[in-house]
Amino acid sequence: MSELDSVLAHIDADIDNAIARLFDTLRLKSISTDPAYDAETRACAEWHAADLASIGFEASVRDTAGHPMVVGHDRGTSGTSVLFYGHYDVQPVDPLDLWDHDPFAPSIETRADGSKFIVGRGAADDKGQLMTFVEACRAWKAVTGKLPIAVTILLEGEEESGGVNLPPFLDANADELRADVALICDTNMWDKETPAITTSLRGLCGEEIIIHAADRDLHSGFYGSAAANPNHVLARILADLRDESGRITLPGFYDGVPELPEALRESWAKLDFSEKDFLGEVGLSVPAGEKGRSVLEMVWSRPTCEVNGMGGGYQGAGFKTVIPATASAKISFRLVFDQDPHKVRNAFRAFVNARIPADCRVEFIEHGAGRAVAFDTSAPVFQSTLTALSEEWGKDAAFVGGGGSIPVTTMIKERMGMDVVMAGFGLSDDRIHSPNEKYELVSFHKGIRSWARILAAL
Amino acid sequence: MSELDSVLAHIDADIDNAIARLFDTLRLKSISTDPAYDAETRACAEWHAADLASIGFEASVRDTAGHPMVVGHDRGTSGTSVLFYGHYDVQPVDPLDLWDHDPFAPSIETRADGSKFIVGRGAADDKGQLMTFVEACRAWKAVTGKLPIAVTILLEGEEESGGVNLPPFLDANADELRADVALICDTNMWDKETPAITTSLRGLCGEEIIIHAADRDLHSGFYGSAAANPNHVLARILADLRDESGRITLPGFYDGVPELPEALRESWAKLDFSEKDFLGEVGLSVPAGEKGRSVLEMVWSRPTCEVNGMGGGYQGAGFKTVIPATASAKISFRLVFDQDPHKVRNAFRAFVNARIPADCRVEFIEHGAGRAVAFDTSAPVFQSTLTALSEEWGKDAAFVGGGGSIPVTTMIKERMGMDVVMAGFGLSDDRIHSPNEKYELVSFHKGIRSWARILAAL
Repeated sequence: MSELDSVLAHIDADIDNAIARLFDTLRLKSISTDPAYDAETRACAEWHAADLASIGFEASVRDTAGHPMVVGHDRGTSGTSVLFYGHYDVQPVDPLDLWDHDPFAPSIETRADGSKFIVGRGAADDKGQLMTFVEACRAWKAVTGKLPIAVTILLEGEEESGGVNLPPFLDANADELRADVALICDTNMWDKETPAITTSLRGLCGEEIIIHAADRDLHSGFYGSAAANPNHVLARILADLRDESGRITLPGFYDGVPELPEALRESWAKLDFSEKDFLGEVGLSVPAGEKGRSVLEMVWSRPTCEVNGMGGGYQGAGFKTVIPATASAKISFRLVFDQDPHKVRNAFRAFVNARIPADCRVEFIEHGAGRAVAFDTSAPVFQSTLTALSEEWGKDAAFVGGGGSIPVTTMIKERMGMDVVMAGFGLSDDRIHSPNEKYELVSFHKGIRSWARILAAL
Repeated sequence: MSELDSVLAHIDADIDNAIARLFDTLRLKSISTDPAYDAETRACAEWHAADLASIGFEASVRDTAGHPMVVGHDRGTSGTSVLFYGHYDVQPVDPLDLWDHDPFAPSIETRADGSKFIVGRGAADDKGQLMTFVEACRAWKAVTGKLPIAVTILLEGEEESGGVNLPPFLDANADELRADVALICDTNMWDKETPAITTSLRGLCGEEIIIHAADRDLHSGFYGSAAANPNHVLARILADLRDESGRITLPGFYDGVPELPEALRESWAKLDFSEKDFLGEVGLSVPAGEKGRSVLEMVWSRPTCEVNGMGGGYQGAGFKTVIPATASAKISFRLVFDQDPHKVRNAFRAFVNARIPADCRVEFIEHGAGRAVAFDTSAPVFQSTLTALSEEWGKDAAFVGGGGSIPVTTMIKERMGMDVVMAGFGLSDDRIHSPNEKYELVSFHKGIRSWARILAAL
């Protein structure tokens, strides 16, 4: 039996303990965006540092101006080195009444066909995914006493809340963190049988606007029409952001957005992708965005503008005839190719300012900025990871695009000059950021086995 | 000393006790729109029935399908009869953090100039106002042992929440409630020195819409553009409701809305009204509605469409890249002259339905409907009330228009064929429906004295 075979066998034998460890971190309410959970977010960082130390990593919780980082090192046995990045913070859980169970009381559910999945906030994004890598390291150490390569693990606590403290941390600790290649486990499989490496990601520009008018809420019977209503101003701005064809109307928004290269278009066309199934899975049937473009093109290679939240005035039960003093919205732009997030932010702010009428003013709040990123898949590390994944899953792994944004990928590429291999085991129906988030038990188990193989291959 | 003079002297001597009684009802959280306060709303009805019984009224709490009515009768000493209407329910208090004190712990505050005001939810709307009439009756009974005319008092518990049970109650009890004239104390003075009788009111059509798209909240990185976003659909609908000139775009909306009669325009032009002061009081300076129309014209004689509340997606602290499953808005139309609320509702629903794209559906919730109403001020009851008010305040009372909607006024006029005299002592800065609602102590005290005079005059 080869060393790798022994490690894989150990993983299979130890899977219940691995699940128990995952549940320990899933119970911790590390909601980074909400200050009410600051203490528990730190407790989660401490749990992960202690867990890495228990495998033999030199691990520590490192303070930042926000939530702390967790850093762990293991020197391994070869000259090759990797930096693994994951994040231990999670999204808020509201609306809580749409969860079937307490989001922080993880459990394993079994379907009629016998397949099992892990339910809880963070099960997929990203605690379940990051633990696949940690468990692979644990298995190597348990079986052979060492790792085949040098591994540094970096776990962030603010990925879901703007991550403003990551760039200075990377800059200040570049020498300590630099490795031959970076690995990230925060992406999806192509489908439940086909593993995938994500080779491009969209960027992000997040903005919040608050429209202010009167200095108090007003009675709409007395002040209606006469007084500026922030709800009307906000609705106008949000409606104006796109035209009837679904194009975003910000001046200059599409600068740096070429049509999709023909080679990539052909490669994506070969993928077994059904728009009907993709949308049907969430109760939809018709693509809503830019007319004349495919869903894959829209979510992988086109920029978007989505209103993630908006609100103003009375939203409780019943009715209240009020003109509110303020109304607000949170808007995210997904960016592709060479779009500059700062330029997009400036264009957006000018667009909004031009639509603020007399007696109103607008307040802007920045929520993160990152450029899009793409890697050259001919590099050896991509090929060897592809092979390891294909061997584990018994099916050829795919290179795919990614619609989401993982700003750290861009930072590692731009600030540290490293390639980043994004291999993850999530599925599109994992409901990350939504109620009843889940992670397939197969994803977790074969994810651990996949990383064990990748560690050997590198 | 005449009987009336004795009654007025008694009111002055008893004012502290009157305030204490008002505070008793202000402490009761009769928020009719929120089911969490159902028990306390009923307790408030019971308090008012007991209070009326203590003056010698034959009073009872009368069940409806919603919150109960309070009805009290006193036969008085002349053939003349009046029906007084008030409402004991109040608006919700959110946002609670904008209140300087507990909204249900009423207090009297004193300004630097020595003037005093009563603070608390319902202080003005409508508990403070309705108690001016009750206290006037109490004083007449205390001094003379009887009322000069026959009085029926009807107190509603659902004025702030649609009032759907009032029409059937009026119909079922028309013989019991019918009187020569109806009195309502739920309106404002012209200014703090000038009493006013409101002779016209706008109607109301309230609608709530809920836009549904995907069957769950989605990650905007994976589904942005591809999936319909209810926030976008809602913003488009709300923005489309008015054009650049401020006109409401619902087809047929202005049917039955004539230009203001010249006589009324001239009468309003004589009023001492400053648009600058009206708007300046709430931190505004520029009329926001239909271009080319005065503020008084807009709030008294033009129909409006206001978005009183809207919301969808993540509205908490920080940022969440979600495409929500639903978004909703509460919209009120104020109606004038012959506008038909049901026709407006149908036009609005057609307008919304025409803007619901593929994969979305809309749910409509009705929140009340009432036509506008106007009275002929040459009727003797208007003239004698005007005289009584002028005598109490030492200044000529004014006939004015009203921007708000008091659906019961329309109902009493249409269903029972009665004139309705709306005399109230609120001021435009009373912050009704808003945090820190207040009622001037002078309004309360001279309001009681005013009703005592009106009871004598009728």
